This record gives sequence, C-alpha cells and structure tokens, in this order.
Amino acid sequence: MKKIIFALLVLFSLSVFSQTASTIKEIKVNEQRIESRIVELAKFGKDNLGKGYRIAFTKGDLDGRAWFIGLMKKAGLEVTIDFAGNIIGKRKGKNHSLKPIAFGSHIDMVPDGGNYDGAVGSVGALEIIEVLNENKIVTQHPLEVIIFSNEEGGTVGSMAMVGHLTAEGLKEVSQSGLTIADGIIAIGGKPDSIQFGIRKKGDIKAFLELHIEQGGILEKENIKIGVVEGIVGIIHWEVTVDGFANHAGTTPMNMRKDALLAASKLIVAVNEVINSYEGNQVGTIGKIAAFPGAYNVIPGKVKLGLEIRDLAYEKIWKLFRDIEKKAASIASSSGTTISFEHQPNESKPALTDKMLQQKIVASAKGLGFTTKFMQSGAGHDSQEMALIAPVAMIFVPSVNGISHSPKEFTKAVDMANGANVLLHTILAIDKE
Amino acid sequence: MKKIIFALLVLFSLSVFSQTASTIKEIKVNEQRIESRIVELAKFGKDNLGKGYRIAFTKGDLDGRAWFIGLMKKAGLEVTIDFAGNIIGKRKGKNHSLKPIAFGSHIDMVPDGGNYDGAVGSVGALEIIEVLNENKIVTQHPLEVIIFSNEEGGTVGSMAMVGHLTAEGLKEVSQSGLTIADGIIAIGGKPDSIQFGIRKKGDIKAFLELHIEQGGILEKENIKIGVVEGIVGIIHWEVTVDGFANHAGTTPMNMRKDALLAASKLIVAVNEVINSYEGNQVGTIGKIAAFPGAYNVIPGKVKLGLEIRDLAYEKIWKLFRDIEKKAASIASSSGTTISFEHQPNESKPALTDKMLQQKIVASAKGLGFTTKFMQSGAGHDSQEMALIAPVAMIFVPSVNGISHSPKEFTKAVDMANGANVLLHTILAIDKE
Repeated sequence: MKKIIFALLVLFSLSVFSQTASTIKEIKVNEQRIESRIVELAKFGKDNLGKGYRIAFTKGDLDGRAWFIGLMKKAGLEVTIDFAGNIIGKRKGKNHSLKPIAFGSHIDMVPDGGNYDGAVGSVGALEIIEVLNENKIVTQHPLEVIIFSNEEGGTVGSMAMVGHLTAEGLKEVSQSGLTIADGIIAIGGKPDSIQFGIRKKGDIKAFLELHIEQGGILEKENIKIGVVEGIVGIIHWEVTVDGFANHAGTTPMNMRKDALLAASKLIVAVNEVINSYEGNQVGTIGKIAAFPGAYNVIPGKVKLGLEIRDLAYEKIWKLFRDIEKKAASIASSSGTTISFEHQPNESKPALTDKMLQQKIVASAKGLGFTTKFMQSGAGHDSQEMALIAPVAMIFVPSVNGISHSPKEFTKAVDMANGANVLLHTILAIDKE
Repeated sequence: MKKIIFALLVLFSLSVFSQTASTIKEIKVNEQRIESRIVELAKFGKDNLGKGYRIAFTKGDLDGRAWFIGLMKKAGLEVTIDFAGNIIGKRKGKNHSLKPIAFGSHIDMVPDGGNYDGAVGSVGALEIIEVLNENKIVTQHPLEVIIFSNEEGGTVGSMAMVGHLTAEGLKEVSQSGLTIADGIIAIGGKPDSIQFGIRKKGDIKAFLELHIEQGGILEKENIKIGVVEGIVGIIHWEVTVDGFANHAGTTPMNMRKDALLAASKLIVAVNEVINSYEGNQVGTIGKIAAFPGAYNVIPGKVKLGLEIRDLAYEKIWKLFRDIEKKAASIASSSGTTISFEHQPNESKPALTDKMLQQKIVASAKGLGFTTKFMQSGAGHDSQEMALIAPVAMIFVPSVNGISHSPKEFTKAVDMANGANVLLHTILAIDKE
C-alpha cells in the first residue's frame, strides 16, 4: 500500500517538476518552522538551573534523539540507527542506481553549551525534506539526513562511519560517564558490529553540513554565507618549563630560575609567532599550572597546553618549529629548560570539495547572499566524511562570535538563509 | 642543696672570670656537638618516606620539643612553657636587677622542609649555654633561651609574646589540622591566658637570633656572616585578569580577549618593574590559575598571586603603583580588565638595632670572619620581638641558597661560626 502511494506521489511530483522548473528557484525553507524546532530541541537536557547539558548518551540526548526521530518519520523519512548510533533518514530518489546525497549534523552538545551548534545543521537538514515534500519534489538521487552520534565527544559517530573508531576508542569514557561502547548501546547502536556498517569511499555522492560559524568573522564583515574551504588540523603539545622552586623572600631577583616567568615569556612568544605569518592560523595556550603554587614560593615547574590549528598540516609544524626556537632562547636566558610533548590526539586538516564550494557560491549568489571563503577552525563530522566522499560546509553568522556557551546565538533569518543555500546546493548537485 | 651548689659555682666562675679575662676571647662553641644535635633533632617528625614533617603541634613537634626541653634542663636552664607554648629557658645573671638578654629561634618546620631553618638558631642558642657552663662563665645579665612555638605558621609564638595574636588568630586552623588555640593547648600552653603573659617594651635587654640565610648571597660572595639590617615587609595582592573565554579554533587571533596572554605580559612587567630600581626588593608571582583551562578554549579569566617584599614599606607601594600602571596599559591593549585585591595578611618591615649590628660586626671581625650587611627576605620571630626590644639577626650561608626543602643544608663549620659570633655578641652586650 505504502509503495503504491509513494509511486503515485513520484508520478505526481514528476509532473509538477516538469511544469514548474522555472519556479523551483523560488522555493524557500520555512524560517518560522526552523526557529520553533531549534527552540523545541533546546528544551531537551536542561539541568535544574536551565543550563543545557544534552551531552551525548545522557537522558537529554536520548530524549532529543527520540523527538527528532519522530519528526524525521513524520516527514516520511525511512529512519534507521546504524551500528554506531548515527540516525540515518532516507528519502528515495527517482533513480535508484544513483548514490545518495547526504547532509546533516549532530544534536548532542558540550556541557553548558549553546542551542545552535549542530542543531542548526540538523534542523536545517530536516527542513530540506519538509520543503521538498511540500513542493512535491523528488530528486534524482536518493537523499540521506544523517544525525551523527557524539560529535562533541570527538566526532565519534562519523569516525565510526568511515572506519576510524578503534577498539581503544570504544573503551574511552565519554563525558556522560559511560564508555563510548556503552553509550552507543544506550542510543541503540551495536558497538561490536561497527565494522560491518562502515561506508566506503564512493558510497556517497556528496556530504553537506550546514553549521553556525562559531566565530565572529561573518558578523564583523556583514557576510551572510561562509563557504568552508576546509577544516583545520589540530595539534596539541604539553609544554613543561623546569626552573627551580625557591623562597620568594630570600632569593634575589638575579638568582632565580622562575619557571612561571619563563612560561609567561613563552606564552607571549607563541602569540608573536602565530601573528608573524599571513593566514588564518590560530595558536592558543589555554591551560597552565604552576608548582608548588604559593604566594611565597618561586614556581619551580610550569605545565602548559599548546594548541595550533591550520588548514595546512605543514604550516602547523613550521609554526611549532619557530616556537621551539623561541623557547630555546627563553630557556637559555632564564636558566630553565622547556620541553614539548606532542599529544597523540592530533587531527589532520580536511579540505572540502572545490566543485561543491562553487555550487554553494552559485546557490548563495542566486539567492542574493554575500559569501566568503573561510576555514572552519572547529572540528566537524564533515572532516571524517571527507575521507569517503566530497564534502562541503555552509556557515551562517554567530552573534558576537560566541560558541560552546549558553550565549551562543544565530538569528532565525540567518539559519533560514543557510538552509536555503543548502537546499539549492542539493538541487544543483542533483541536476548533474 | 641545689642553690648552694649554684652559689659556689658563681663564686668559682667569678674567680675564673677575673683570672682569664684575656682568654674569654678565645672561647669557642663545640662544632661537633652542634652538628650532632642538628642530626638528632632532624629525626623527629619524619613520615614513612623519611620526609620531615615537624609541623607545629603535630607529634613530631611535640617529640622534638620534649627532647629539646630535656637538653635545656640538662644544661641547667630553668625551663617554663609560657601561655602561648613558647619554651623559655632561664639562666641567672650576677646582677638580678638587669634585664635579660634573650636569644633563640624555633624548631617547628614547614611540610617537607629542611633540617636547618630554625634548628640552627635553637641548637646554637643552647650551645651558648653549654659553652658558658663549660667555661664557668656567669654573665652580668640574666640569659633567656627562647624556642618560639609555630613560627612557620606565621610567627605565632612571638606574636603572642608581644601581644599581637588576636582572638581570630587563635581560631584559625593550623597546618596540623588543629586550631591555633587547640595546638597551643597540645604543647602545654594556655590560649585563654595569653594576655597575661605578654612581654612589654623594655622588658628585654636585647633579642638575638642566629639563622640560616635561606638565600644564596653569602655563599655566592663567599662571606661567612650576614649582619641583618632588617626583616622585609611583605604584601600580597590577588590579581584577577578578566578577558573573554571563546573557542580556540574559531576565534581569529585579532578578535581574542585572551586573559592568559594578558596575565603573561603582566608577569613579565612585574619582573621588569622590580628590576628597574636599585636595591634588594623582590617581587614574585607564585600562583596562577586559568579558567576554564582547556587546550581548546581561550582563557576568559586568570587569577594570580602577587607578592612584593622590601625593607621599606613605602617602596613596596611605589613598586606596586608602577605595576598597576603597566597593568592598565596591558589591559587596555588586550581588551581585558586587570584588578588587584590587597590581602589582609600584610607584614610590616622590622629594622634591627644599629648598635647590635655593630656589636655583631665587631664580634665577627674579632673571630676573623668576613661580614655583609643584608636584609632578611623571610619573616622571623625577631620581626615581632622588634616591637618590644632591640633585636639582631646573624645569618650563616645556605648551600645553593636552598630553603624550605629537604635539600636545605648548612655546613657544620658555618653553624659553629654563627654560634661563635652569637656567643661573643652576647658577651659584648653583657659587658656594657
């Protein structure tokens, strides 16, 4: 019965399609529906202070997923949970032999995070399906809405999908308190079978992700649409500065080996090195601890966390080598030693597809939006998906550039703009 | 019986004194006895790793005090515990109408501290009594060996002795886990009656303290005896740098309000200000905490602990005003705010007595030792005693300038040198 209705629908929409080809350019997402769904999703996983804690695998995540799956089904998608707990909603295309065009994001959040990171791309992806339904459009390619599991815990769902999640990774304890494996079970996945669900290179026509910028560039430059050229690589180093702890009253200034003073000079030097090159690289020291850590003791040891991000892996290392040189000079003039330990969790840069970038630009221009090529400074599921498919990302402005915070905000009109660009990019890909 | 023996001893020693006035200059402390007692004292209050934990009011402190009191009694001192738990050992002088010459230090230690801080002055003070006994010398002035209670917890015993220990101070929890009041009870004092035991200005002829330098100046300059001009004042400020926490990947370098970068510039500036003036002032940032404190978040807030020490109270404030100015400029150029909160526990500088300084120099020169006028960068009981009596301090070299550490060390010959200078200074004061 269902199949017959679907076949009729296809026939009907085909006829609509042929009749209204010129008006397809006019179809738009429903801004008000996007906004109300963002508000609705934000209600899942609040603590008793009203702070958002939709951390992957917790009750808030489970409740949010159940609500979202309900909407997907209501929109006619054929919903499955893959072995890694990713939610996949399929919509048939006219041509079954074509590879699917996939798009989506995630609905889990960081502790006390915001309501837009991941949510805009998820609600936006569902909105594409709603609008296609309302306009009775059936694409040539099958479509897939993918809501990845545990993105904030290190793009776990997408890593699993492309075969990058290791047995060790499954044993790690997630922020929910559960291991990744147990968390995946909690959301309906099957961690033991993940290897059987891996998508291979060529399985997917394209993967597209709409996302908030999480930075302040688009807002500052008054640009509507960011066209992501790539997702930066990230390398962490643990830095140790060894001086000599001594009495802060009895040790003259010229006889000190103050590890914190040397560390401070290094922090200033890191900033200078990062700013000394053209480009969008960023370098941050976000962690510091000084030992023993008392008013009256000269610090003998300081530990720092250094992070460098850039689209070019080699540039990250070039910047690091410059920092190392500055560190050697600071160490020698301060009587300290400074050592760097490269952390194992590095993530390599991922470039988006040039053809898809151009399609996004064309769609945005067709809708009258200004665009800017930019990098994504944050990691995303698209980064993993780039290993098996051409990927693209569409950024929309974040108010005041704030993210991972309850103050995170994106205007409804900007979310709708991004979803419209996503919609018309998908239709353009479909036309190929 | 005891009194008769004492009277006979006095008569005998008087005759010796008159017969050997020229040889008094030759009498010397027993270096080997000093060293063996330092080694003996170090055995009290070790944890099971052999680290020294003779923290005031703990079992190690109680055991060490009991052992020391035994030695004092054996040396003929009349020992009492005052209301604050200070150990006072009296030796009568020939002239009962004269005020006592007092000298001593403390035997409590910081957690995992060294075996010389306080111990050298305590064992050295007792050694004076031993040598006077052995040489059958009775001074004109009565003598008092004072072993102050809980020096490392903030010169508690000497504060109590001069009337500076408040009711609030008694309620504070000491490092032993006991309140100061309960700790004082544990060592045989009577906290409720401290006000009845206060020594008034003019009660004591002079107070002298032999101590390790705790810094590396004497060793570096190959000087045998440090003549302390004063004990520095200490002021602490809690510094708060407020920036804006943001995503370390998506926030471009020129849009950051990095509280840790601003704090680092301030740490460098503090060092520059302190070094920009002539003198022995010291300034330290020994504490730092950055929030939220993750590799991938630009720190939004940093807390620092700033300490400045100098012999001149006004100079400490002058240095601070310079630091404030630099902070304002760093804040304005980094988009942060920097605020300073003056901490209530400031300690005012205390100057030693010029006449006593000269007597120490003369005694040292008489013994063939090089001397250097210097300040004490650390707090000492002498600082409190300066409020009621002329005080003086004799410093001996610390190997490598290390203190408050198990690596703290002073050579036996240096301890003996210091004790000899103390002995001959006391004899010189007594001759007045």
